Amino acid sequence: MCRFVVYKGTSPVELSHLLTRPCHSIINQAFDSRLRVDRRRPMNGDGFGVGWYDSVYDEESHQPCIFTSVTPAWNNANLVRLAAKIKSPLVFGHVRATTTGSLSLDNCHPFVHGRLMFMHNGGIAEFQLIKRALQADLSDVAFNKVQGNTDSEWAFAVFLSKLPDPDAKSFTTAQLRDAMFETIASLNHYAEEIGITEPSLMNFCVTDGETVIATRYVSSKVDEAASLWFSSGTTFHEYGDVGGHYKMSKADKRENIIMIASEPLTFERADWMEIKTNNMVVVTPKMNLLQIPIIDKFYVPPSDPASLTRTIEFAREKGLLVPRSIEIMDEPESE
Amino acid sequence: MCRFVVYKGTSPVELSHLLTRPCHSIINQAFDSRLRVDRRRPMNGDGFGVGWYDSVYDEESHQPCIFTSVTPAWNNANLVRLAAKIKSPLVFGHVRATTTGSLSLDNCHPFVHGRLMFMHNGGIAEFQLIKRALQADLSDVAFNKVQGNTDSEWAFAVFLSKLPDPDAKSFTTAQLRDAMFETIASLNHYAEEIGITEPSLMNFCVTDGETVIATRYVSSKVDEAASLWFSSGTTFHEYGDVGGHYKMSKADKRENIIMIASEPLTFERADWMEIKTNNMVVVTPKMNLLQIPIIDKFYVPPSDPASLTRTIEFAREKGLLVPRSIEIMDEPESE
Amino acid sequence: MCRFVVYKGTSPVELSHLLTRPCHSIINQAFDSRLRVDRRRPMNGDGFGVGWYDSVYDEESHQPCIFTSVTPAWNNANLVRLAAKIKSPLVFGHVRATTTGSLSLDNCHPFVHGRLMFMHNGGIAEFQLIKRALQADLSDVAFNKVQGNTDSEWAFAVFLSKLPDPDAKSFTTAQLRDAMFETIASLNHYAEEIGITEPSLMNFCVTDGETVIATRYVSSKVDEAASLWFSSGTTFHEYGDVGGHYKMSKADKRENIIMIASEPLTFERADWMEIKTNNMVVVTPKMNLLQIPIIDKFYVPPSDPASLTRTIEFAREKGLLVPRSIEIMDEPESE
Amino acid sequence: MCRFVVYKGTSPVELSHLLTRPCHSIINQAFDSRLRVDRRRPMNGDGFGVGWYDSVYDEESHQPCIFTSVTPAWNNANLVRLAAKIKSPLVFGHVRATTTGSLSLDNCHPFVHGRLMFMHNGGIAEFQLIKRALQADLSDVAFNKVQGNTDSEWAFAVFLSKLPDPDAKSFTTAQLRDAMFETIASLNHYAEEIGITEPSLMNFCVTDGETVIATRYVSSKVDEAASLWFSSGTTFHEYGDVGGHYKMSKADKRENIIMIASEPLTFERADWMEIKTNNMVVVTPKMNLLQIPIIDKFYVPPSDPASLTRTIEFAREKGLLVPRSIEIMDEPESE
Repeated sequence: MCRFVVYKGTSPVELSHLLTRPCHSIINQAFDSRLRVDRRRPMNGDGFGVGWYDSVYDEESHQPCIFTSVTPAWNNANLVRLAAKIKSPLVFGHVRATTTGSLSLDNCHPFVHGRLMFMHNGGIAEFQLIKRALQADLSDVAFNKVQGNTDSEWAFAVFLSKLPDPDAKSFTTAQLRDAMFETIASLNHYAEEIGITEPSLMNFCVTDGETVIATRYVSSKVDEAASLWFSSGTTFHEYGDVGGHYKMSKADKRENIIMIASEPLTFERADWMEIKTNNMVVVTPKMNLLQIPIIDKFYVPPSDPASLTRTIEFAREKGLLVPRSIEIMDEPESE
Repeated sequence: MCRFVVYKGTSPVELSHLLTRPCHSIINQAFDSRLRVDRRRPMNGDGFGVGWYDSVYDEESHQPCIFTSVTPAWNNANLVRLAAKIKSPLVFGHVRATTTGSLSLDNCHPFVHGRLMFMHNGGIAEFQLIKRALQADLSDVAFNKVQGNTDSEWAFAVFLSKLPDPDAKSFTTAQLRDAMFETIASLNHYAEEIGITEPSLMNFCVTDGETVIATRYVSSKVDEAASLWFSSGTTFHEYGDVGGHYKMSKADKRENIIMIASEPLTFERADWMEIKTNNMVVVTPKMNLLQIPIIDKFYVPPSDPASLTRTIEFAREKGLLVPRSIEIMDEPESE
Repeated sequence: MCRFVVYKGTSPVELSHLLTRPCHSIINQAFDSRLRVDRRRPMNGDGFGVGWYDSVYDEESHQPCIFTSVTPAWNNANLVRLAAKIKSPLVFGHVRATTTGSLSLDNCHPFVHGRLMFMHNGGIAEFQLIKRALQADLSDVAFNKVQGNTDSEWAFAVFLSKLPDPDAKSFTTAQLRDAMFETIASLNHYAEEIGITEPSLMNFCVTDGETVIATRYVSSKVDEAASLWFSSGTTFHEYGDVGGHYKMSKADKRENIIMIASEPLTFERADWMEIKTNNMVVVTPKMNLLQIPIIDKFYVPPSDPASLTRTIEFAREKGLLVPRSIEIMDEPESE
Repeated sequence: MCRFVVYKGTSPVELSHLLTRPCHSIINQAFDSRLRVDRRRPMNGDGFGVGWYDSVYDEESHQPCIFTSVTPAWNNANLVRLAAKIKSPLVFGHVRATTTGSLSLDNCHPFVHGRLMFMHNGGIAEFQLIKRALQADLSDVAFNKVQGNTDSEWAFAVFLSKLPDPDAKSFTTAQLRDAMFETIASLNHYAEEIGITEPSLMNFCVTDGETVIATRYVSSKVDEAASLWFSSGTTFHEYGDVGGHYKMSKADKRENIIMIASEPLTFERADWMEIKTNNMVVVTPKMNLLQIPIIDKFYVPPSDPASLTRTIEFAREKGLLVPRSIEIMDEPESE
């Protein structure tokens, strides 16, 4: 039931355009149930986090700044005020519904280590059963990093332990990509060893301030993963008089802005492309966007007819919707 | 968009049976949108309050105890723990969606003064315009009582100023009833003086620990008020294996329990009776329940065909639903 | 028991150098009792606020951004993270101990209206008694501005009502100065009318993003006001290896930085000058600093020997210390 | 820098008499620095918890109810209201200053498992270094129990793993006592294995609702442990007109009340007895109080002159004072 959004641009965006103003932002999604199926489950009201890199003053640390809250994002006066003032070229936003982990700042995404920032939408199946084996394999740095009690933060610890040096001053795109592949492989391995058959939903997103890696993944051959979309263009701007309606424009061939989100932020159908299940998206420092299949035993190539028959029930049950057709995203007025 | 619930019984109820366990309690309603129409508006995640009288130890003060919170009720560990331990024969519960007033403990219902407890579901139209006139008429006690910035708390101040002595050690049912009539009349008067035409929704509820008074009222001749229901019986208990399903049973003619709520707490159709628009319900100390029409220029007698044509759009727009037929309350499984 | 600090510089300061890092910042003062006399009263743990103007991106609104919190500043993870990232040429910081008003974000200073920012250290004596008369005189804008229930926010409303147009796009230094004079005069007038004899402590601070006005004032001829200091120089920087020790340096005659604070932020005696009781300090947009006596019936000219015998007991009782000699500010190690 | 208090009585105490009203309660100690030495360290403003057993309604579960908060206890409106209403014959109270672990409800004491309740005042030296070995030895129940990230909660997990069955419906006094001995021995063992030389301060307190076990312990032969006191009598009551002054009276030989606390709650010298370093106090279900030495390599028998020369500097540095003489506890007025 979590949601996340990523913005990477050649110029900074005011956080409000991403978070508080769009009527279909992840915060406003938190109380907009048009895309929700299981209406008896709680909303994304269990915590919020936003992380961003500063392009103006911060020429040394390159570490992201984080603002988190356990009160609902939609009524957080500090968030509204900060979002109207802060601009950044690289932003992660996350709203949370507790599945595992208690309501605590320590459990709010994004998680940070040095210049790395990480968030997760999904859930590691029966995490309690693999927690001890997972921890045993971690380096001390990764083990001691964890402050909260979520599967997501431990997944970040696994990711850190897959990097050559999690405290490095810079990372190559390949290092981050490979660490992500290995993180998923490790989590699958722990589950397999202990005989867990329920699939895990692993939509992860990580950045070092330069590269962004996002996965849409489920450890199943027959289920769909939690939804994930991207959009790219030249400008992302408000239109019309109502307020809250945004669209992505493409003025020329350059892509100045790439956004990745669990749900489309705009009502414009053409703005958003679905990332395929069990694929990774890599946004390079120079704003190239690559889709890479995550090939393991759960992979089904697009050429295989089975790739079209993954069922959405599992992700739905978990509150991580997979609206396959885009009809559902009509203007709310036309409901 | 607020919701409230009242329990009055000859024996104490464990708060959990009222608040946290029923799958259709006001807390769980907070994220159950089956009865919601305007799904683009925020949930009742903006604060919570419960007030109760202690029947065991408190033989002196007879003042209610209050627990309030600005984090959502559905994920409040303290509430879950307290509700499982505390029992009381007279309980008010309230969830809040901010319409006026900021997110602050000071703005959480129920409000307390001495042994009186008060809550409101609705909204005073264009309250800013009548605030100064209203305040000017208050006694100092009532004026200085207000800590927050909601129309509801100021309405309570008006109520206090209509009592012979708001700090009295006891109140008669007639005193409370008359003060409630006068409160509504006053609020209408201020609106009229300044020319406000938008109706106000005044579902108020007050108690002194003995009598309970609740109103279902709108200052309009053509609109429905926000919804209000009551239920009475001998026991209120959980049934079935699923958990969270409750019903009211009538073992004999005695009414040991009376509940009043903005929305039915159970899925049993026969358990709940709708209180008619512009009526007051009085529960006497001896558990008699009276319905009294609030007769003023907005009153339409049941004999008048116009009483059947009040429209629900206004209350709906405000998020205060008026499900006229009870079909909507089918079991969620049958959805 | 509140404390505040103001920074105005020709170049921006990282908020951490003002708030979180100095071992004698207002936040760390909150648990450093060397300057406290009444140790049985609560610490400044009842809320915190910081307001700043952005010099980089904000070329339109010129409205300050505010971050407030009801959890203690010294343990606020968001504050620590934001302070390490945000820079500003004009900052207000405030820590609060509740004297009037409940623990609520609405009650946290600084208060904002348009491009104006206001805070208060002190207390309006028997405020409940003058509240109604004060409110009656306010313009609707000023009256409706107030969200919380503190004497300080109502004092800001008085200030707003003394401006020609509180929503103006710019203010002259003279307008702000005169409004401040009139605010103090009005508050004295209300107290006098109703016969309040206890003095009010009115250390106010206001800015429009250009001019800064601060007062050190008490409505008494024989008592000292709450303490207020200023410091000016070319750079404000950390020294030594221990961390947390700061000093102000004067590289040349230019004053690039002016700081005003209820207590000195550094251990360097020569860095800080005491503002005299019943004086106003004006920092002009061009960084000139003027001291102006507030001449009314409570004023005692420096030539009058009585100016040396104001007693500090009253301010002390209120937890607003007036350390007359600076010996008390020795290095803590030498304690 | 934490503080705790335990009340066990033959009849219930209103929580306010223990927590909010005494001017020297652990909450009011939180801002009373008379007994503090290191005044540059933060106050106990980083969280609060109270746990109690219900003697009236709860005849089944015998599980304690817990109320915790991350805002300072001294300004918690819910705590003040609840404490004035709730009565219990067995209460644990704890205020916290973060040494390890972040500001989070998950980190607030007392910790609960089934009918067991546990709290800690002190610190496990270099806990990060022993955390992995400690976790490896835990049962799954104990391992999965931990929600936060404090040394204290992990110490509770060790305690649980020393019980024959942590989910048992009842415990003997001997089982609890032995598990406590083994917990301390285990923690010492981990430290020794890894070569940690800094002493750990292990003032633990545990109860099953019947027996109470408290330790005053330091893993050192030359340092004093954090302070711990007890008081017993027939009634604990307020006296005088000022309010907040309490004393323990002994009407006859029966001991109806036993209190254990890190600092005396009253100003009456004769009310409180110091528990000796490296001793355990056991309060049996029938209200007998036993002192048992914890004999291991850090034990110094009272006959040994070295028992008189333990130095208090270590506990002082940690903010866990050991006022050896009671002079320091004079009435504050005489300061």
